[in-house]
Amino acid sequence: MARILFGFHAVTVRIKTAPGSVAEVHIDATRRDARMRQFVERAREAGIRLIESEELRLQALAGTHRHQGVVAKVAELPAAKSLDDLLDRVEGEGGTPLLLVLDGVTDPHNLGACLRVADGAGAQAVIAPKDHAVGVNATVAKVASGAAESVPYFMVTNLARTLGELKERNVWVVGTADDAPHGLYDADLRRPLALVLGAEGAGLRQLTRKTCDELVALPMAGAVESLNVSVASGVCLYEAVRQRGRG
Amino acid sequence: MARILFGFHAVTVRIKTAPGSVAEVHIDATRRDARMRQFVERAREAGIRLIESEELRLQALAGTHRHQGVVAKVAELPAAKSLDDLLDRVEGEGGTPLLLVLDGVTDPHNLGACLRVADGAGAQAVIAPKDHAVGVNATVAKVASGAAESVPYFMVTNLARTLGELKERNVWVVGTADDAPHGLYDADLRRPLALVLGAEGAGLRQLTRKTCDELVALPMAGAVESLNVSVASGVCLYEAVRQRGRG
Repeated sequence: MARILFGFHAVTVRIKTAPGSVAEVHIDATRRDARMRQFVERAREAGIRLIESEELRLQALAGTHRHQGVVAKVAELPAAKSLDDLLDRVEGEGGTPLLLVLDGVTDPHNLGACLRVADGAGAQAVIAPKDHAVGVNATVAKVASGAAESVPYFMVTNLARTLGELKERNVWVVGTADDAPHGLYDADLRRPLALVLGAEGAGLRQLTRKTCDELVALPMAGAVESLNVSVASGVCLYEAVRQRGRG
Repeated sequence: MARILFGFHAVTVRIKTAPGSVAEVHIDATRRDARMRQFVERAREAGIRLIESEELRLQALAGTHRHQGVVAKVAELPAAKSLDDLLDRVEGEGGTPLLLVLDGVTDPHNLGACLRVADGAGAQAVIAPKDHAVGVNATVAKVASGAAESVPYFMVTNLARTLGELKERNVWVVGTADDAPHGLYDADLRRPLALVLGAEGAGLRQLTRKTCDELVALPMAGAVESLNVSVASGVCLYEAVRQRGRG
């Protein structure tokens, strides 16, 4: 099945990671700036079919005017492997699992921003419960700046069960909560790790919370009660990066 | 001069920090949920004048439908003290300056998110150059979740000169750049500090970059080239929090 990607980042990453899946790319023929020239050059090198299209056509394809002059028709990638397969591969390559779990993040901008920072920090996957999550749509992909293509996103039926299975694989499950007994910086994040963040305001659901091995709080020094979930994800994931000596 | 604030966070923080500046608060009379009940209770305790208003009136006041049923008419707070006065006060109280400098962040959502995380990390001010910045409007205040009220925001005429003045006061000026010679985690962030972040894509302007004492890079492990500026601000500010033992 075909789908639409738009924006320089999202389309560039798809061309880089799976050029064979790109059916065609429509570009704004009136844009002659450096970014577009560089994009066109890369796309040509990758053997991509480029079509110069008018603004109205680009808008119609993308379903928005925020396409940056680049709209791609692409094939769906093969369904992501199972989480188990993914962890087998990470561990087989000598890596240490770093997973981001989102419990109740239903805003596409927030999901996109979380995928982006998960990619930056080198997390191997993002996991969310099917019935308290949002799928990857064009808005998510745009905000993710390419990370919707590079970071596997697993929507699972029963999050508590999935966390239980991760624990059986010796993945340490760390949740964030305002009222946690100790702070983020007291936790050992070097081991195989799943970081669990809840929706702003609501926080983790009760069962999710109970399933965590450990709860940690982010220090909040000022007047606001919480951080945006993508910012909190960034602070937690990059603390793992720091502890692992990958900074 | 009066201005409008809307959303639970923004209005609650104003009531908490400067109740005398709140002329009146319009609330959605049809909302009876816990959040509204709690808000009404706090507002009454603070002696705030509450007016039950219809949806159309709330929308007209707020200029948007995203008001959450809470719209306040407030007086402008007295103009923020100068940056010098602020630093005198911080140091007088035995604190260590932690400042966030944004060079070219013109998107109101990004500014709001940066103010929010600056508040969370305990930064005492956010600084931006007048001609490459956005002012605090209602969108910024909403996204900031109250931090537009709690964190002073200084728009300065000449950013390089302001950074020079900070350096004269022994504030260490650390900029972020993809091509920096070393990583964030190699920098000593315990001293009086100004963290300088540029706009996504463009990065720091040349003169800003040259004015920094030190440049650091954030590790980027995946396909995306950079983090959202508020996420990057969070990672940098909270690393300072960690190093200072405030976590």
